[in-house]
Amino acid sequence: MRIDLNSDLGESFGRWELGDDAALLSIVTSANVACGFHAGDPTVLRTTCEQAVERGVTIGAQVGYRDLAGFGRRFIDVPPADLTNDVLYQIGALDAMARVSGDRVRYVKPHGALYNAIVRHEEQAAAVVEAVLAYDPALPVMGLPGSAWLRLAEEAGLSTIQEAFADRAYTPEGTLVPRGASGAVLHDAAEIAERCLRIVRRQPVTAVDGTPVLIEADSLCVHGDSPGAVHIARTVADRLGSAGVAIAPFAAVPAS
Amino acid sequence: MRIDLNSDLGESFGRWELGDDAALLSIVTSANVACGFHAGDPTVLRTTCEQAVERGVTIGAQVGYRDLAGFGRRFIDVPPADLTNDVLYQIGALDAMARVSGDRVRYVKPHGALYNAIVRHEEQAAAVVEAVLAYDPALPVMGLPGSAWLRLAEEAGLSTIQEAFADRAYTPEGTLVPRGASGAVLHDAAEIAERCLRIVRRQPVTAVDGTPVLIEADSLCVHGDSPGAVHIARTVADRLGSAGVAIAPFAAVPAS
Amino acid sequence: MRIDLNSDLGESFGRWELGDDAALLSIVTSANVACGFHAGDPTVLRTTCEQAVERGVTIGAQVGYRDLAGFGRRFIDVPPADLTNDVLYQIGALDAMARVSGDRVRYVKPHGALYNAIVRHEEQAAAVVEAVLAYDPALPVMGLPGSAWLRLAEEAGLSTIQEAFADRAYTPEGTLVPRGASGAVLHDAAEIAERCLRIVRRQPVTAVDGTPVLIEADSLCVHGDSPGAVHIARTVADRLGSAGVAIAPFAAVPAS
Amino acid sequence: MRIDLNSDLGESFGRWELGDDAALLSIVTSANVACGFHAGDPTVLRTTCEQAVERGVTIGAQVGYRDLAGFGRRFIDVPPADLTNDVLYQIGALDAMARVSGDRVRYVKPHGALYNAIVRHEEQAAAVVEAVLAYDPALPVMGLPGSAWLRLAEEAGLSTIQEAFADRAYTPEGTLVPRGASGAVLHDAAEIAERCLRIVRRQPVTAVDGTPVLIEADSLCVHGDSPGAVHIARTVADRLGSAGVAIAPFAAVPAS
Repeated sequence: MRIDLNSDLGESFGRWELGDDAALLSIVTSANVACGFHAGDPTVLRTTCEQAVERGVTIGAQVGYRDLAGFGRRFIDVPPADLTNDVLYQIGALDAMARVSGDRVRYVKPHGALYNAIVRHEEQAAAVVEAVLAYDPALPVMGLPGSAWLRLAEEAGLSTIQEAFADRAYTPEGTLVPRGASGAVLHDAAEIAERCLRIVRRQPVTAVDGTPVLIEADSLCVHGDSPGAVHIARTVADRLGSAGVAIAPFAAVPAS
Repeated sequence: MRIDLNSDLGESFGRWELGDDAALLSIVTSANVACGFHAGDPTVLRTTCEQAVERGVTIGAQVGYRDLAGFGRRFIDVPPADLTNDVLYQIGALDAMARVSGDRVRYVKPHGALYNAIVRHEEQAAAVVEAVLAYDPALPVMGLPGSAWLRLAEEAGLSTIQEAFADRAYTPEGTLVPRGASGAVLHDAAEIAERCLRIVRRQPVTAVDGTPVLIEADSLCVHGDSPGAVHIARTVADRLGSAGVAIAPFAAVPAS
Repeated sequence: MRIDLNSDLGESFGRWELGDDAALLSIVTSANVACGFHAGDPTVLRTTCEQAVERGVTIGAQVGYRDLAGFGRRFIDVPPADLTNDVLYQIGALDAMARVSGDRVRYVKPHGALYNAIVRHEEQAAAVVEAVLAYDPALPVMGLPGSAWLRLAEEAGLSTIQEAFADRAYTPEGTLVPRGASGAVLHDAAEIAERCLRIVRRQPVTAVDGTPVLIEADSLCVHGDSPGAVHIARTVADRLGSAGVAIAPFAAVPAS
Repeated sequence: MRIDLNSDLGESFGRWELGDDAALLSIVTSANVACGFHAGDPTVLRTTCEQAVERGVTIGAQVGYRDLAGFGRRFIDVPPADLTNDVLYQIGALDAMARVSGDRVRYVKPHGALYNAIVRHEEQAAAVVEAVLAYDPALPVMGLPGSAWLRLAEEAGLSTIQEAFADRAYTPEGTLVPRGASGAVLHDAAEIAERCLRIVRRQPVTAVDGTPVLIEADSLCVHGDSPGAVHIARTVADRLGSAGVAIAPFAAVPAS
């Protein structure tokens, strides 16, 4: 049994620091590195890539809307052709940083409002798929199981990485309970770790309504933007490790 | 006899159009394409790269300060390490556009205030050199003969392309008469074309004080941001062509 | 009979020029001046305000989404509280420019995607109303008849200015035919001028389906971002003038 | 005896939080509120103004270069006319926030690299003075004693507020020891508080070379961007208070 742990990194900007990147890089195996449009100035991106390479953490491009003021968390109705180019620009920029650090961008995961939009927004989902295809059709993409994004990527021949969220509640249908809804975010580290172990073992977890639901995941997303979040991430990693689960980048997973 | 003609391109941004890129791409052999920091949104950059590739025009990265409001024309005292990373980010982003267009970034030419600063500002010049070295030490750099930029690049083992400005007056020492000074910019297309021909033939031209001065150049810079500028560029190209000068990208120049 | 003519102005940004502001300022009576979020740097805003004051043209704040790359033409799902503050910030900034030019901001008209969004988006419409109320409840607001924006503004006690678009086709219901639809934009200057005269005279115009439709307007919007647009604007003004219609700012219209 | 305490506030931006504004607002009497160019989104500015008004803290406009990525800490060679307009824009925007919060902008203090530049850069100093004069010649300006900024402001008839820095070492000439130089920043809260008391009492403090130097100040600048900084600010306020010094906004200081 093995699983990938991913987290958002490189989200500081200029004078503003965000997230405990050093702590997370000692826990996760995949780093979703911001690309400058929603967060991450060039020095932050390069430093994050260098640290990821030092720790053997896989670098992914976390592409987002051009929206520093909104941290990429506000839907923007970008025309698809422009969105494709915005994503290409971001991947290329981060890839420069990854390459001078001794590795390269190895997957693409959209951020924030773009991530949420392309669960259903077919045109924007297709636009991001087109960018990845144009840049490098060997790049896997990461996202929500059942999303338009992963479906269109798969149809286009891209490898897909399904992710589950360690600290989020699920509906009986296996979708995320929307943030803001009661009980949407879990806080108990031990409980979260236990759920993660069940997900890795392909055992059902308890949905928000109490019924069991099976969540499939190649990667588990953990957060690091608060001391509590880092503690949760570490608890998840420790629990999985003590249960004999190998924490390893998805890229190392043999194509079963 | 042969010479490269270069021009700044891809400087539109969103709703704002600037320069007659189509006209210039039928004249020049090297396109200094903006990289998004001083001008050029991702769609503009991609379209410009595609058009350059269609016309067989060589793509260069015209890197600049992060300053849309100032169009990269205001000196910014960016710490060298940050400047290196700003330049890397821009080269990587444009290279993505060049590659999906079927070619790649083939040289680097700084823009505006950065171009002017690194004529003498050793730290910033070294910072830009470091970015090019880190990205690809096979990338030539373009700039002003005698600048710190070209000297440091050469010392670091980079190939250098010396450029002359078709429409600018020179001092007896072979440096540019500062914009704003009387007579700094030439306007007569036929006279400009004649000067260009003399430069290509390694014959002296008349400096601002009337004395002869020898200008060495691998590439001639022409502009296209006004109808008059496009006319001048075309006149230069026609004059050189009718005199038997081959207009060809510097990359094709055999290392004599 | 009298009517106000309004147009978007101050939409240049740094090196990028847009629109023939000088021409329009000799035609219109109300200037919707950009406020820096979708277009307009501070020097452009100040110059535009000074020229408007010189010509006796009323200054309005054309507030928009924070989106230079998209020129404010892309819907952004800004949370209402943030939108209120974005609008306040823009009005205050432009008011500084208007005041140092000898006048002040005299109305508010949203721009682009924000204009379109608040035709129906109640939360964003309410957010913009709240900003105007907080800044100065004596400021009139301009917009589309029948929009949530004008309705909520009226309910909040703000004066409203209904505008019609000189060069746009209308549905039989009196709403705009969406851009992109066939026949949405009119191009014949004489025909457009004639329609404008009918609108001023409270006579029905021909809707896109050939049926007559009555369009009520306190102000007519004309454009100036192309030579053709300026010609149309001038033709409209001339036609109205020769028919004895006084072209005057809405503020001068007695509350009948 | 009385003194004003000022601090930089409102420097968060979107998702990025910076500084313990709540703590500082219970200590200082003057708030240098960012204006959006180097930091501070409109919601942050409004919230900061509201909290300042609640606590009776005087609001000042901390205007800076347009440089979010550099936090306004990098010199930008902005042409003076543009700088004047950039400053006007920022004052107007913040004044809107101050006014809807029940007060108004009551002084202007440049930030970061602009603050440092106009100690000697006459053209930029004059440009900022011109902006304040144009906006409201009754607005006092705050800055470094002996700076071109305060001298030109005074010559133009503006009121000036001289400030001293609680935690910075001084040269024997009474200028700041440059950051980065050994001993430039003081860290011992008790020692800093004692120095502040001496400054208020018009007693000399010890310069970096051990000689006594007299520092004149209407206001003391304290920082709040780290837990240590807040502790120092509080220690200063407590020490002054226990010594019978009234901590009060400069505006309340009778013109002696």
